[in-house]
Amino acid sequence: MADQESESVRDQYAVRRLGECRIPSPLNLSVVTGDFLPDYTEDDKRVLVDVEVSEGETPSPAAFESAGPRQHIFFDPLTTRVGIVTCGGLCPGLNNVLRSMVLELNHKYRVRDILGFRYGFEGLNPAFGSPPINLDPAAVADVHRHGGSMLGLSRGHQDVGMMVDTLQRHGLDILFCIGGDGTLRGAHAISLECEQRGLPISVVGVPKTVDNDVPWVDKTFGFDTAVDVARQAITGAHAEARGTRNGVGIVKLMGRDAGFIAAAATLASEDVNFCLIPEVPFEMDGRHGLLACLERRLASRGHAVIVVAEGCAAHFNESEVSLDASGNARYAHGATDVGPILRDAIAEHLRVRKVAASVKYIDPSYMIRSGAANASDAIFCNELARYAVHAGMAGRTDTVVGRWHRRFTHVPLALITGDKKRVNPDSAHWLSVTEATGQPRLTNDPPA
Amino acid sequence: MADQESESVRDQYAVRRLGECRIPSPLNLSVVTGDFLPDYTEDDKRVLVDVEVSEGETPSPAAFESAGPRQHIFFDPLTTRVGIVTCGGLCPGLNNVLRSMVLELNHKYRVRDILGFRYGFEGLNPAFGSPPINLDPAAVADVHRHGGSMLGLSRGHQDVGMMVDTLQRHGLDILFCIGGDGTLRGAHAISLECEQRGLPISVVGVPKTVDNDVPWVDKTFGFDTAVDVARQAITGAHAEARGTRNGVGIVKLMGRDAGFIAAAATLASEDVNFCLIPEVPFEMDGRHGLLACLERRLASRGHAVIVVAEGCAAHFNESEVSLDASGNARYAHGATDVGPILRDAIAEHLRVRKVAASVKYIDPSYMIRSGAANASDAIFCNELARYAVHAGMAGRTDTVVGRWHRRFTHVPLALITGDKKRVNPDSAHWLSVTEATGQPRLTNDPPA
Amino acid sequence: MADQESESVRDQYAVRRLGECRIPSPLNLSVVTGDFLPDYTEDDKRVLVDVEVSEGETPSPAAFESAGPRQHIFFDPLTTRVGIVTCGGLCPGLNNVLRSMVLELNHKYRVRDILGFRYGFEGLNPAFGSPPINLDPAAVADVHRHGGSMLGLSRGHQDVGMMVDTLQRHGLDILFCIGGDGTLRGAHAISLECEQRGLPISVVGVPKTVDNDVPWVDKTFGFDTAVDVARQAITGAHAEARGTRNGVGIVKLMGRDAGFIAAAATLASEDVNFCLIPEVPFEMDGRHGLLACLERRLASRGHAVIVVAEGCAAHFNESEVSLDASGNARYAHGATDVGPILRDAIAEHLRVRKVAASVKYIDPSYMIRSGAANASDAIFCNELARYAVHAGMAGRTDTVVGRWHRRFTHVPLALITGDKKRVNPDSAHWLSVTEATGQPRLTNDPPA
Amino acid sequence: MADQESESVRDQYAVRRLGECRIPSPLNLSVVTGDFLPDYTEDDKRVLVDVEVSEGETPSPAAFESAGPRQHIFFDPLTTRVGIVTCGGLCPGLNNVLRSMVLELNHKYRVRDILGFRYGFEGLNPAFGSPPINLDPAAVADVHRHGGSMLGLSRGHQDVGMMVDTLQRHGLDILFCIGGDGTLRGAHAISLECEQRGLPISVVGVPKTVDNDVPWVDKTFGFDTAVDVARQAITGAHAEARGTRNGVGIVKLMGRDAGFIAAAATLASEDVNFCLIPEVPFEMDGRHGLLACLERRLASRGHAVIVVAEGCAAHFNESEVSLDASGNARYAHGATDVGPILRDAIAEHLRVRKVAASVKYIDPSYMIRSGAANASDAIFCNELARYAVHAGMAGRTDTVVGRWHRRFTHVPLALITGDKKRVNPDSAHWLSVTEATGQPRLTNDPPA
Repeated sequence: MADQESESVRDQYAVRRLGECRIPSPLNLSVVTGDFLPDYTEDDKRVLVDVEVSEGETPSPAAFESAGPRQHIFFDPLTTRVGIVTCGGLCPGLNNVLRSMVLELNHKYRVRDILGFRYGFEGLNPAFGSPPINLDPAAVADVHRHGGSMLGLSRGHQDVGMMVDTLQRHGLDILFCIGGDGTLRGAHAISLECEQRGLPISVVGVPKTVDNDVPWVDKTFGFDTAVDVARQAITGAHAEARGTRNGVGIVKLMGRDAGFIAAAATLASEDVNFCLIPEVPFEMDGRHGLLACLERRLASRGHAVIVVAEGCAAHFNESEVSLDASGNARYAHGATDVGPILRDAIAEHLRVRKVAASVKYIDPSYMIRSGAANASDAIFCNELARYAVHAGMAGRTDTVVGRWHRRFTHVPLALITGDKKRVNPDSAHWLSVTEATGQPRLTNDPPA
Repeated sequence: MADQESESVRDQYAVRRLGECRIPSPLNLSVVTGDFLPDYTEDDKRVLVDVEVSEGETPSPAAFESAGPRQHIFFDPLTTRVGIVTCGGLCPGLNNVLRSMVLELNHKYRVRDILGFRYGFEGLNPAFGSPPINLDPAAVADVHRHGGSMLGLSRGHQDVGMMVDTLQRHGLDILFCIGGDGTLRGAHAISLECEQRGLPISVVGVPKTVDNDVPWVDKTFGFDTAVDVARQAITGAHAEARGTRNGVGIVKLMGRDAGFIAAAATLASEDVNFCLIPEVPFEMDGRHGLLACLERRLASRGHAVIVVAEGCAAHFNESEVSLDASGNARYAHGATDVGPILRDAIAEHLRVRKVAASVKYIDPSYMIRSGAANASDAIFCNELARYAVHAGMAGRTDTVVGRWHRRFTHVPLALITGDKKRVNPDSAHWLSVTEATGQPRLTNDPPA
Repeated sequence: MADQESESVRDQYAVRRLGECRIPSPLNLSVVTGDFLPDYTEDDKRVLVDVEVSEGETPSPAAFESAGPRQHIFFDPLTTRVGIVTCGGLCPGLNNVLRSMVLELNHKYRVRDILGFRYGFEGLNPAFGSPPINLDPAAVADVHRHGGSMLGLSRGHQDVGMMVDTLQRHGLDILFCIGGDGTLRGAHAISLECEQRGLPISVVGVPKTVDNDVPWVDKTFGFDTAVDVARQAITGAHAEARGTRNGVGIVKLMGRDAGFIAAAATLASEDVNFCLIPEVPFEMDGRHGLLACLERRLASRGHAVIVVAEGCAAHFNESEVSLDASGNARYAHGATDVGPILRDAIAEHLRVRKVAASVKYIDPSYMIRSGAANASDAIFCNELARYAVHAGMAGRTDTVVGRWHRRFTHVPLALITGDKKRVNPDSAHWLSVTEATGQPRLTNDPPA
Repeated sequence: MADQESESVRDQYAVRRLGECRIPSPLNLSVVTGDFLPDYTEDDKRVLVDVEVSEGETPSPAAFESAGPRQHIFFDPLTTRVGIVTCGGLCPGLNNVLRSMVLELNHKYRVRDILGFRYGFEGLNPAFGSPPINLDPAAVADVHRHGGSMLGLSRGHQDVGMMVDTLQRHGLDILFCIGGDGTLRGAHAISLECEQRGLPISVVGVPKTVDNDVPWVDKTFGFDTAVDVARQAITGAHAEARGTRNGVGIVKLMGRDAGFIAAAATLASEDVNFCLIPEVPFEMDGRHGLLACLERRLASRGHAVIVVAEGCAAHFNESEVSLDASGNARYAHGATDVGPILRDAIAEHLRVRKVAASVKYIDPSYMIRSGAANASDAIFCNELARYAVHAGMAGRTDTVVGRWHRRFTHVPLALITGDKKRVNPDSAHWLSVTEATGQPRLTNDPPA
């Protein structure tokens, strides 16, 4: 790799800093090893982007900046003012992140001014008339024990200039944006607007999507919990399927663009016979299509369990859908609700084929999103939140705090926002899923 | 009360016996108290029907026969052949009942011939081609740890004569029928047909309905578990409702004729603002209707949780439904699925009223039905099953085994099958619900 | 029964009233049936004490007063001052009872002065220096979602005169005492002292013992939850026992005087081979003692699970204990901790008998006591609390609110405090336990 | 780094192969990307050992071999005979690993001869008289739903020569050893003995320790589940601590050499005030010792929760222990059971200091070990098992299958067995724990 190229590759992983860090951290950590005290993170610590190589290959030096508490920070805790906003839909762990941010800021950095904006970016728009609330340890005392978000959320974006006006009006130094792709795009825009206005405001994102489709991070919080609950739904579908002659249990799981929840829940349950995700095309009709395979499964085993990710709606050919499940159904459920479409298509097929069957459909989505974080997510949320605070106090901006190869990192917002992580059908992960289900390719064309 | 009337009243609670019990029980129980050994139940032991009186009033002597192991039994365990059938839909505890029946018959009475018929009454119809399976302790070893039914179930009835032919062909002495209202009607018919043919076959029902609407029994198995899981769904709806501006969480719960699950889950959760059940009429429109009350709740508190029992579909005036939610919606969901109808009606109302709201709908029914029994239901199922075996071995027939005032009883099938238990709107139970929700009457007419 | 005797029998079930109820209830309930509105409870409504009779026998008219909201009440809500105290050890549901009392008093009766005394009866003793806290709906908003008690508890009694002085100093009209046998004795003493001083103070107890050993009530709150959690511990002991050659899993469960939790958890789990409770004597030694039976079980099945109620310590002959488990052990655990004594005795016996075994001991007591109420207990606590409030507002005193034959009742404190409910070894309940375990009598003497 | 050194560094990560892989895999995977079919893993694929670098530093090329299915394998599935053994103590997920191994071998590789040895390495010793059982899909159908190990386990080692004799007698080609440090040392010894005898037997280890202290792997299975259950115990201790005046809740968690469970459960719960682990020394006495800090915590907040890892026993100075808690206590509990020692020391200190306190101790260890795997562990176990099968079929030996930077790898047994992974007190992980607890250093010496 030429030096220039290498430079540009490295640049895309570099995180913007508001300025030099001159203020000693109030955290009182250690700078020596072996003293049984945790240490500050040095500024030049990095985490490699690529961890897989071929034998003999030279590893790429591309790397993310390591997250962690710095010995010197950018903002003076005595005067720092912080805002937090949660956007999008519910996700297990939101309250854990909120609480740990407040505890780290208040107990450790001694920051006293923390505002929680209500209902997502709407909370930055005075027109909605919901003033922010003051957050301190008492306000967040028990929130981590419950699902939901104590601040509330909303979808959709607001005008960037107006939002930065609000930041200025409140005199904020740091804004933490907890949300998914749209939210991080908003955070990026806010960050650029602040830069253009010459405002030294740190904008730090915490990626939040129960779908786990954020690139450049190992996983997003809430995902483990979602899979726990999704597994329960599948267990139920399995009992329903086995409980009747030719029982078919269908569970729709979240995943608009990526089938991570469907794949993981399938692996966790071991009860699934067909796992349908947006990344892997399948056909309904034909000798090797889903309907024929399902029929054969019923003939040989008497029951079947199907997991379908919501994003599979795109697999349904428009004409097929109107044929199988009628425009009415699509209108009633919304054009993108694949669950009832699949249920009706299967029921209709079995009816036509005179297979006396019983099709049961479960949509556990809101029960999954709204639960409290399991232990694994609680730990992850706690750490994410504290690393985000370290990043903000050290003047990083236009960045998210993520985890990569199990290390916490700073990842530029620009790198994350243009892309989605997806299940790789060539990967060992998808192999595991197909081994757990025993499902064939579900397409009529021979493999390339 | 005249003697004759009194006699006839008593008769309706009396259970039919196949004949005199002459065979010593192999259970080796005690007949003396104070020896630290459990005792046989005496034949003349009764449980009062009515436990509530007014001061000074003479209690009614009407009583059910107490269930329990008899010192002398009707069938000779060495030659007794038993059949078991499970009918209807899934219900937590089915496998527990099956397992305890088999263990009691095999380990205690030393009965070796136990047949489990597959998929409900269909299993008694040779045309379906699913032969019964032999049940012994190994076959039921771990089934109580899981939801579902190891025998499978089906709905619908079969020809009575054909079913009794099957009983005769298998040489059965006892048939246990585990199921709901339809199943118990079937059991009653089988019992009458056996009587007409002069067959000394004992037919014993175990009432099974997750809706808890069987009369003359304290509760049916699976109900406690159902309420546990229903509460989780409501907790999720509450988090969703609080998570957005004007969030409305709707949970549909089971209960075609009776709102017991909806009422109990409302009490258990304490998060519900409106609990709608078939027994208590409500109006959608008008100043005191649900929609206006909901709107006021949102205006004052910003969120609301609604629980609706499936049987409330009957409350919806036909014209209203087509007006509010359109014929399409009704067609797509089926005319009786009240959940989406209510969801669409509320969403449409709030849209018309320009209330920016977010309506989330959860239908946890299949997740509730399919779960494993909680501790309380596991105990109840175990006892019900063993009492049913005692009843069968002692030659009782045309009876169910129930629990009444916390005692196990024999109740004539004829008494149970004509009726449904319902939530009494005048009762303290409904008072508790309305106190937990704070809901008004939801009707525009003044109270009578 | 002679009239005089009958009178005296009835008297023992009669509850004391502070005076005539003249104030209209603010609850706005109905007095007519069929109007879909819950009704007031009439003063002459009763619940029979005995529900079991022999055929032809005349039922006893002895009855408890029915609990419920009265149309006219004794205290004027505008001026009523209420105190609440929780005593003893933790029990699932304490916070549910507290919360529902506050909500019923505040929302329904419009009582504004509610004091929560801290740490049991100590809170009524100014010497401890913990002032009571004001309770309103905000203070109890989410407490029902968690175990523990928001007021704190303590054991031990305080001087009755001093406690009544405190009631007078705070101008209290009603005192709710939530606790076990000792607490209810204290409540009875307070009530008598108030009567002697001529103070119209209502003292209403809510029986609280996870052991479920309160007489004249169906069950106490927290019991169902305790059995749920206890079952999990037994499931673990079972996995441990099966996981090694000659594995023995021992679970100690609560129950100082009564083995209800041990018996119910045994029934719920179906994994237990020996259930030891205080009510049923057993021997360790001899051909039919526990040790020999256990050895035979290991020889035939390779593993065993034992549940022992803490009250079984009394079964251990002093000399045996010092022989088997040594004085050191007894000193270290305290003489009454039967779990380690049993564990050590079994391990020593198997060592001497050269059975290569692995004995695992689980004491889940604090995990059981400290959990949040399950759905069934949540419902029960909510209703108990509201009925207690109705009783207090209607001027009942020296009474507990219980449930009897599934109806809520007023039971005189004097009737309850002298006695303990115990598992009846002659009963069908104990029969169920022995059938579930298959355990023999565990004594060497032949049955009487 | 000189080439020679570099070579030797690489060698230590290289896994031994029994020979060339010439047999086409029966898995029918793809070798092209983009065809929506999972691919074989190429032999030269590697995972970097080190992922953290300083800016500008050249990454080390040291790497592990990637695990995964090979296009050509060493053993002919038609004749391959496989043995599986589980050793040590229970750990959540054991049955999941067993089941997935059997399913992968049977369904995918079409291997029909699979033996499950009973009770650990004892099963390889004929003297114990427990013959192995045949494993096929039916035998493992539902085992993943339950904790424990269907094969049983034992501790301790057996003679290596005798064990290899057994492998030869059964004609085994592959032995899978699931266990902890001792087991993996045994596997290494078996592997060397096979090599010496010239036997082409593949020995593949699956690291199993709930303590998570195996080096060179991200985590061991069962750990996530253990933390889930440990958190419940802490929640209970917290409710107990808050439920009384000066309540102290102590939870002992597993971790003989490493405090990973204690640290993670502390992070997950957020209720802990002092987390004591073997890696971080602490003092009991002195102004900055645990006892004084605890006393100050009680004075200021009225309750405290302490988590202690079992390995902390080593921190207790012998003389202190005998002074504080007496030799009797130590004798009774065994010298290494730190829980009761700490409990008694704290209770005694508070007694002497006249602090009226209530100390509650919870030891949930057996409840933690014996549970069924949560969703995250179920997925992990399934993948580990299938990768282990791939490794064995491809003739890798003297290796474990682990996960490193979230990729599955082959790690030489020799690298793993000499070492333990421990919590690093300098790390951000320990920082998170101390931030979650707010605990000071607990030593009287000033930091170095």
